Amino acid sequence: MSRALAQLPATVIDEAVRRALAEDLGRGGDLTSEALIAADQRAAGWLVTRADGVACGLALAAATFAAVDPEVRFEPAATDGDELPAAARLARVEGRARSLLAAERTALNFLGHLSGIATATRRLVRLVGDRPARVVCTRKTTPGLRALEKYAVRAGGGANHRFALDDGVLIKDNHLALVGDAGEAVRRARRAVGHMVRVEVEVDDLEQLDAVLAAGADAVLLDNMPPQRLAEAVRRCRGRALTEASGGVNLDNLAAVAASGVDLVSVGWITHSAPSLDVAFDLDPAG
Amino acid sequence: MSRALAQLPATVIDEAVRRALAEDLGRGGDLTSEALIAADQRAAGWLVTRADGVACGLALAAATFAAVDPEVRFEPAATDGDELPAAARLARVEGRARSLLAAERTALNFLGHLSGIATATRRLVRLVGDRPARVVCTRKTTPGLRALEKYAVRAGGGANHRFALDDGVLIKDNHLALVGDAGEAVRRARRAVGHMVRVEVEVDDLEQLDAVLAAGADAVLLDNMPPQRLAEAVRRCRGRALTEASGGVNLDNLAAVAASGVDLVSVGWITHSAPSLDVAFDLDPAG
Amino acid sequence: MSRALAQLPATVIDEAVRRALAEDLGRGGDLTSEALIAADQRAAGWLVTRADGVACGLALAAATFAAVDPEVRFEPAATDGDELPAAARLARVEGRARSLLAAERTALNFLGHLSGIATATRRLVRLVGDRPARVVCTRKTTPGLRALEKYAVRAGGGANHRFALDDGVLIKDNHLALVGDAGEAVRRARRAVGHMVRVEVEVDDLEQLDAVLAAGADAVLLDNMPPQRLAEAVRRCRGRALTEASGGVNLDNLAAVAASGVDLVSVGWITHSAPSLDVAFDLDPAG
Amino acid sequence: MSRALAQLPATVIDEAVRRALAEDLGRGGDLTSEALIAADQRAAGWLVTRADGVACGLALAAATFAAVDPEVRFEPAATDGDELPAAARLARVEGRARSLLAAERTALNFLGHLSGIATATRRLVRLVGDRPARVVCTRKTTPGLRALEKYAVRAGGGANHRFALDDGVLIKDNHLALVGDAGEAVRRARRAVGHMVRVEVEVDDLEQLDAVLAAGADAVLLDNMPPQRLAEAVRRCRGRALTEASGGVNLDNLAAVAASGVDLVSVGWITHSAPSLDVAFDLDPAG
Amino acid sequence: MSRALAQLPATVIDEAVRRALAEDLGRGGDLTSEALIAADQRAAGWLVTRADGVACGLALAAATFAAVDPEVRFEPAATDGDELPAAARLARVEGRARSLLAAERTALNFLGHLSGIATATRRLVRLVGDRPARVVCTRKTTPGLRALEKYAVRAGGGANHRFALDDGVLIKDNHLALVGDAGEAVRRARRAVGHMVRVEVEVDDLEQLDAVLAAGADAVLLDNMPPQRLAEAVRRCRGRALTEASGGVNLDNLAAVAASGVDLVSVGWITHSAPSLDVAFDLDPAG
Amino acid sequence: MSRALAQLPATVIDEAVRRALAEDLGRGGDLTSEALIAADQRAAGWLVTRADGVACGLALAAATFAAVDPEVRFEPAATDGDELPAAARLARVEGRARSLLAAERTALNFLGHLSGIATATRRLVRLVGDRPARVVCTRKTTPGLRALEKYAVRAGGGANHRFALDDGVLIKDNHLALVGDAGEAVRRARRAVGHMVRVEVEVDDLEQLDAVLAAGADAVLLDNMPPQRLAEAVRRCRGRALTEASGGVNLDNLAAVAASGVDLVSVGWITHSAPSLDVAFDLDPAG
Repeated sequence: MSRALAQLPATVIDEAVRRALAEDLGRGGDLTSEALIAADQRAAGWLVTRADGVACGLALAAATFAAVDPEVRFEPAATDGDELPAAARLARVEGRARSLLAAERTALNFLGHLSGIATATRRLVRLVGDRPARVVCTRKTTPGLRALEKYAVRAGGGANHRFALDDGVLIKDNHLALVGDAGEAVRRARRAVGHMVRVEVEVDDLEQLDAVLAAGADAVLLDNMPPQRLAEAVRRCRGRALTEASGGVNLDNLAAVAASGVDLVSVGWITHSAPSLDVAFDLDPAG
Repeated sequence: MSRALAQLPATVIDEAVRRALAEDLGRGGDLTSEALIAADQRAAGWLVTRADGVACGLALAAATFAAVDPEVRFEPAATDGDELPAAARLARVEGRARSLLAAERTALNFLGHLSGIATATRRLVRLVGDRPARVVCTRKTTPGLRALEKYAVRAGGGANHRFALDDGVLIKDNHLALVGDAGEAVRRARRAVGHMVRVEVEVDDLEQLDAVLAAGADAVLLDNMPPQRLAEAVRRCRGRALTEASGGVNLDNLAAVAASGVDLVSVGWITHSAPSLDVAFDLDPAG
Repeated sequence: MSRALAQLPATVIDEAVRRALAEDLGRGGDLTSEALIAADQRAAGWLVTRADGVACGLALAAATFAAVDPEVRFEPAATDGDELPAAARLARVEGRARSLLAAERTALNFLGHLSGIATATRRLVRLVGDRPARVVCTRKTTPGLRALEKYAVRAGGGANHRFALDDGVLIKDNHLALVGDAGEAVRRARRAVGHMVRVEVEVDDLEQLDAVLAAGADAVLLDNMPPQRLAEAVRRCRGRALTEASGGVNLDNLAAVAASGVDLVSVGWITHSAPSLDVAFDLDPAG
Repeated sequence: MSRALAQLPATVIDEAVRRALAEDLGRGGDLTSEALIAADQRAAGWLVTRADGVACGLALAAATFAAVDPEVRFEPAATDGDELPAAARLARVEGRARSLLAAERTALNFLGHLSGIATATRRLVRLVGDRPARVVCTRKTTPGLRALEKYAVRAGGGANHRFALDDGVLIKDNHLALVGDAGEAVRRARRAVGHMVRVEVEVDDLEQLDAVLAAGADAVLLDNMPPQRLAEAVRRCRGRALTEASGGVNLDNLAAVAASGVDLVSVGWITHSAPSLDVAFDLDPAG
Repeated sequence: MSRALAQLPATVIDEAVRRALAEDLGRGGDLTSEALIAADQRAAGWLVTRADGVACGLALAAATFAAVDPEVRFEPAATDGDELPAAARLARVEGRARSLLAAERTALNFLGHLSGIATATRRLVRLVGDRPARVVCTRKTTPGLRALEKYAVRAGGGANHRFALDDGVLIKDNHLALVGDAGEAVRRARRAVGHMVRVEVEVDDLEQLDAVLAAGADAVLLDNMPPQRLAEAVRRCRGRALTEASGGVNLDNLAAVAASGVDLVSVGWITHSAPSLDVAFDLDPAG
Repeated sequence: MSRALAQLPATVIDEAVRRALAEDLGRGGDLTSEALIAADQRAAGWLVTRADGVACGLALAAATFAAVDPEVRFEPAATDGDELPAAARLARVEGRARSLLAAERTALNFLGHLSGIATATRRLVRLVGDRPARVVCTRKTTPGLRALEKYAVRAGGGANHRFALDDGVLIKDNHLALVGDAGEAVRRARRAVGHMVRVEVEVDDLEQLDAVLAAGADAVLLDNMPPQRLAEAVRRCRGRALTEASGGVNLDNLAAVAASGVDLVSVGWITHSAPSLDVAFDLDPAG
């Protein structure tokens, strides 16, 4: 994965870390460590994987330790997007023992959640292999964490669909039920939005597809189509619109879907249901 | 589930909804609906399950629609904690079509995420059956969503472990590595914290257990113990401390673990890796 | 202007109004009105234009009065986007006199600022006449007010360019100075970003234009080109990329620029330098 | 301008920069630069004026670059309040190329907006010349930016009227319409507010002026008075109250107004309608 | 106390209530009431004084109940500023029992703290009697609560000194130690700040007083002067500047201080050390 | 470990300092210092006690100076919890004179308020002497400052009761009035809450006490009991539940209460009515 990985903005990182730490430190801080460990006792430790997967969230982990104690030293041993075996080192931290233990869980929660998404995405990307299809995520994300989760998809090698309701037009079945005519819907959208905004339309059959292409859609979402129909749809769209396969895509059928030649395969579960990657903190009391 | 389900505070709901909506409406709102649908067009629809599971998050869904448009009418058809089949109705919404579509995805994301956690919890609770063990969650939660996720565990029939580092003492292996003596650790903690705070200690073997009990721990976390040793530990703790089995508990071994007689079984994955419950919005254009 | 005007999200309005009111009410509220006027004295008044222009910001004005006092009655007499003469009524308010006076200036500041932008935009839109060019705004906005200002441009009949650095690619001279080859830059961008994101490139001459078109840019920003060269660039782009004229466009030369057939004309000053529209509050003490 | 320029509080700067950057970096950051430019590529550049004017906002620009990347080096070459020709250097920045480009527009938007206000103010201050009148701003400011804009007025050589409704009493025509008697209004206000709060009253004619002076107003706002009447009002107020000319003051009539001897001339447009000063970023790829 | 009492801005109330409730409801809400009381059980109750004093904070109490549950009915039985005996009723509340108990402590904490300040202030105001002196507060307030505490002083019959560092000039001994000459300090301040800002100077002896008066101070803070010297200072200031006695004023010496004829007596302890007024909640289970 | 004093979380400190400074610096900053003192003038000074007491709040004071100006040097000369005479030095600060004066009052307000609470607590702790009772605080705290105030109680040598409604169960008379049976209430609570949460019940007489003990309460709040009855209650609870004496405890009766052998004595006034400790800033202009 030599591709440049767009970083998360500092404003997003700061806000996410502040909120997560406030949640775990609460109003009284780490009762256990402060009761047991002297303020000046020092320690070190490693953030390590307990299963193989794709690393993601190192900047958040670093920011978490820094927010608890700016004097903690955080040395990354991996980079977001790296594919790692179990027991691989993600980073080394060193500093006051209390600070390490106060930040540990929050840092691990970021790493586990985002690496889980990156890992799930990577598995799909590998299944696509050298076919042209890109794996893209949806708006089915964990409330309040979309910027982080979309970043994890990128770290996994996937691409982002529109971020939110305000940066792309996606005309879905519900819209068509209200508007009636798909072609008319595309034209209205095209007129209403800026030139940087793309217009995509969900289509269920080939007839609808032709109307939508005629109306100038930039992309079509081919919903739950069986492989042959998908291939035919791709053929009709070539040179006219991007094609996105969507609906029920999983590890078993992805290869077949990608074989249809679609440009994009969107998968909701990489953001809403990917299991966390097991990441742990190995303390080295000797420092 | 007749047990009283403590509600989420309004302050928590408002903040979560505001953040999630800001994320999805962004700076320009729902480009698609506003381009296609007249401002005064009305519609109705149902929030429905697409798989069987335990409902959770209805107050968040209601607050989401209300935040987008106070005039949307939201009528719940289920209650958090209800066990529902696929295609069950969670709520009916009615109002401006634009408002329904702008709020839909955020409301569904809350419902899917929290119902997924409640559903996973309930499966475990069912497996425990009539043994005394309670299923409890951990601090391995999605960053920024802990209050919601702990609530979903309660809705699923589980119980909450401490909420954060500041409302309970849990002395873990890393602390003991730094302090040395488990008994001394318990005594220090007991002295340092308030009387409403309970002290729990992680123990790996029975020798450590005895020391910890002698020092007055309120609860012990029995880490990764095989069933027989667990049963012996439970026997020694009876009347002296609560027992919590932890580490590697899953659907396959939970019954055996519970059979040991432990008071609590803690499971991290119900909050960090439970798949989302599939929940959808069925629009009724005729309203 | 029958075109559908996408509304501002409630989350954006609430935040903007809260901040502006906090700024004007401060820590002690309206010292003058509270010293002089009885708490139960009622009044009414009209928000009126003092110059001709395009109305914008009525939802913000309404939200301002409601935030000060939910019992103030706000009746709009115009709609955002309306072209109005001087002395036209925008809205009528009625309620406690103290509340009206406490909210007045903040409401007027929203209306004046946004109507000023809408008015400036409309003047340009009128100058374009029936040529195809759309007037678009830039990222040269007042810090912290971009969502509102881009909305005001839409209310004026203009369109929005990308909202921010994260929802569109615009490769400018500074990027090209660092990357070297414009075609290579387009290819890199195309690969790196999602399919809903459009890629636009700034070009200074026709040679660069050809390279950029060959690389598949979605749009080209034609920087400071004289009319003939602009027309030639438009000819070369036809059917291949959208064309945007930019740089030094003003009321005097807009018609000539639009005559070149460009799809878009971007103008920074409508957001950063449009004078405020004069809007005032006429109190009717008799209510 | 050797006069001490009160700085903006760090709390105000931090909040304004955070909000403006969040607006421009959004949820995904600078897509263009991250797609095109290597993470370790370095560059330098100058923030320069493209027109003559008064610099303002350097602390905000510095804080913007620092918030994006604390390792960017920001070296100011001018000071807020400096009167500069076109093509003057405001500051040099050096660091990661991506960081410079991500912060550029936000920094320029602060500089352009505030320097525009400072420049407009300075022009008025120059026109007053050696007459005693001070140029003061009003509450007609851009919503959410008042602290910055009032600072820009000070940087331009003007002075601030009250900041908000809570730090001064200004009895206007609307208040008098409700209270009836101007003298009574002054007395009520004087009784109600603290001793650090000044009481100013708007008067339209000389009769009202006498009543208000008798009641002990600290200052009078002489609304839209022709020069002679203004001069007479100033004469009557001498030694008793400060005089403020207000209403319709522009570049053409300011000298005449100031010649009346008034202490203050308030001008709304320097904050609500001053055009932005053209400020640009000249990148030096060689660093 | 018929004097108009300036209300707290809604923006201040909302923010204070939201923060206080978040603090008390935390992440899990009222564990006790939700465990014990059915969701639909209703109750009523009275907020009552347990000692005599001056009521203050009713709007905050009302907003607290409303934020927990908009359906709670809150009926005030007193008004801020009312002087009440022990066992007096402040308000009646009625609604869901859980909601009443969840909001109770936060509402009482507002009432107790603010009524304590109002009560302390009123005692001083009574001691001043019919002498001209007004009791004023200082900036020695509880961090984060200044707007509320200054309001409580007003409710007690006192007046506010400047609110913060930005709305008044108070030249103190530390400033004079750095500047040297008191007269010069006044002149510099007068030049630097707007015309609505008053300039007050701390003086320790009569010589300094004369210099400061000559330089045009609006008010003088007479620090720790014995009664005779105070009276002489007042004599010299008459018609030229307001006089404020400050330093060590308490219930025993206030009458003597006021007898000197000073305009103002400032007292820090009414905001930083006034004991809370005992206010309680009497539940009526029968509702 | 001469008793571990759990530190305040950085997230709590940052938020409290930001809010308090915003309150005092406002929108224009320190008008006085900026008018009088050159930007580059340096100074030093000492934060000193003016009365004997227990220091508390040094981290907040340090953070306040740092937030105003990161270059101010803050050297603590005492530690939270230290018992100090009058005129003792708490810390030395050195840096720009303007920065010191801008931060001074906010830093002193934190120190005075928290040291006042720590001092009051320490007096009570001393009165308890070598009896087992610990002095604990309540939820009667200043709205918005609970985390700080509970920390000050710990610094004074006291302990914290539950922090909020969500981290402990305290069944009070109002609950019992609604539920009826105290034993049933304990059982319901025990079932409903997690195992880390303790259950305490308020009892007024010995009969109630027996029922509550039988139901398994972890602690009992003995409300307003005379010494003998208290002693009898303590006897009955021994080995079964913690005992807390509450209601009307003051400096005069504390020794008698503690002599009963109770484990805890809760005192509301140490947080809601403790007078501020007099702390001042002694400027050393020579630096």
